[in-house]
Amino acid sequence: MTVIRVEVTYRKGVEDPEAITITRNMKILGYSSIRNISISKTYEITIEGSGDAEKVVREISEKILSNPVIQSYKILS
Amino acid sequence: MTVIRVEVTYRKGVEDPEAITITRNMKILGYSSIRNISISKTYEITIEGSGDAEKVVREISEKILSNPVIQSYKILS
Repeated sequence: MTVIRVEVTYRKGVEDPEAITITRNMKILGYSSIRNISISKTYEITIEGSGDAEKVVREISEKILSNPVIQSYKILS
Repeated sequence: MTVIRVEVTYRKGVEDPEAITITRNMKILGYSSIRNISISKTYEITIEGSGDAEKVVREISEKILSNPVIQSYKILS
């Protein structure tokens, strides 16, 4: 059994609507010192075997866990 | 300007509906070697000043970025 972590982030220049909304609401709620918030998602994947585990994880990261048009992924461990 | 990263995860024993759905769909899509997927969200917060920056980040992490009943947060840096 192998555990592989994948971080998915928005590409530079692509607006993340959730992050924009949260940042705006911080100001409304009185947290005016907050300049920016960006969000990434980390998937911790437990997968059988080890041989082609990273290959499978790369495949699902590209096809399912991220939208390659607006997001990129990084294998963390 | 200070940058502080906060990771929000579901507490142990609390089901994450998104993670459950993705895990189930992996099997349907033929990725039967995948045993489990858990998800965390990381907020990278850019905040003015440095003195009470971490105090402010802890406050918004508890009140806004996480639901303390089912989630916990960790300051990463």
